[in-house]
Amino acid sequence: MSEYSSKLLETTVNEFARLPGIGKKTALRLALHLLKRDIVTSESLGNAIIKMRNDIVFCSKCNNISDTQLCELCKNPNRKTSIICVVEDIRDVMAIENTGQFNGLYHILGGVISPMDGISPNDLNIDSLINRILEDEVQEVILALPTTMEGDTTCFYIYKRLQGQNVSISAIARGVSIGDDLEYTDEVTLGRSILNRIPYEGSNNM
Amino acid sequence: MSEYSSKLLETTVNEFARLPGIGKKTALRLALHLLKRDIVTSESLGNAIIKMRNDIVFCSKCNNISDTQLCELCKNPNRKTSIICVVEDIRDVMAIENTGQFNGLYHILGGVISPMDGISPNDLNIDSLINRILEDEVQEVILALPTTMEGDTTCFYIYKRLQGQNVSISAIARGVSIGDDLEYTDEVTLGRSILNRIPYEGSNNM
Repeated sequence: MSEYSSKLLETTVNEFARLPGIGKKTALRLALHLLKRDIVTSESLGNAIIKMRNDIVFCSKCNNISDTQLCELCKNPNRKTSIICVVEDIRDVMAIENTGQFNGLYHILGGVISPMDGISPNDLNIDSLINRILEDEVQEVILALPTTMEGDTTCFYIYKRLQGQNVSISAIARGVSIGDDLEYTDEVTLGRSILNRIPYEGSNNM
Repeated sequence: MSEYSSKLLETTVNEFARLPGIGKKTALRLALHLLKRDIVTSESLGNAIIKMRNDIVFCSKCNNISDTQLCELCKNPNRKTSIICVVEDIRDVMAIENTGQFNGLYHILGGVISPMDGISPNDLNIDSLINRILEDEVQEVILALPTTMEGDTTCFYIYKRLQGQNVSISAIARGVSIGDDLEYTDEVTLGRSILNRIPYEGSNNM
């Protein structure tokens, strides 16, 4: 006899446990929770998952998750088309949008180059980025990729691909967080923030 | 524009976030994970949830989750029918089964009496427990309920209901965990383990 008294329960627990960060115990808790609620709760969860996966569209321009062929951001006539922020995934778009500091467009790579995980440039949306930059006469590309070896490799690869093109490339500033004490900042961040110091002009946007 | 670039994504995130212990950030991570996997992954998760909720059966005898009218445990001819272990929910059954120390049957109350949460004896499977004890000529009832005020109330309620019946009632032993140092054991547990001391007979099953 299996650990679970019901095959149906076991199947659901195993399916939940395949999600990242969810172990068997949590999966069982979720399944038992659904069993305590009415049928509608389970049906709306189940159907939402299936419908999302089947009907989702990726924006043909920036690869953002979208319900339409062109996402809301790319469709928006008020956004500057001459500046593109390159990010790893959709969560980064949401984080930057929340700051309200960026009015250009995005390009979602869908990952970073990682030979260890078998992710090569061809697995990412880099070709479409290059084409887009050349076709849409983009003036500035902001690289907002993670500060890992993989992120750095990806930045360098994009930089190389764009060499000789008439486009300026920048990377978001890394440094000590606003409000952080210097003594608690890690050495690498503090070191970089000194190397990448900027001229102080009275207020300095701080 | 909503925080999410897609209504489909938003719906799924909201549905995931209704599960216990899953916030909006985790829900988004789960949804994006599913989008990265193939359609089959989402369909098997979604369908497993819906199918489980629609087709699940509760054992007509012990209220265990089951695929059939009588659960595997109640069906098993090798289990003693004269002894019933009363537990709060199915996870307790799994925990006790894992010990391999119990060969009787279970009865799942589906909760404990809690006037604060509006849970009265009528909301629990207590009547069916009493009937079962009288009809099946059960000789011993083991109460394995939580050591909370609600658990204690429930134990006492069942004890009162069974008074005058020819059935012995016991509760599982509470005490210092095997391998635990006395100095790190909480006072209540240590105090109870002294009050409920048992005669030492050489090995004492330790």
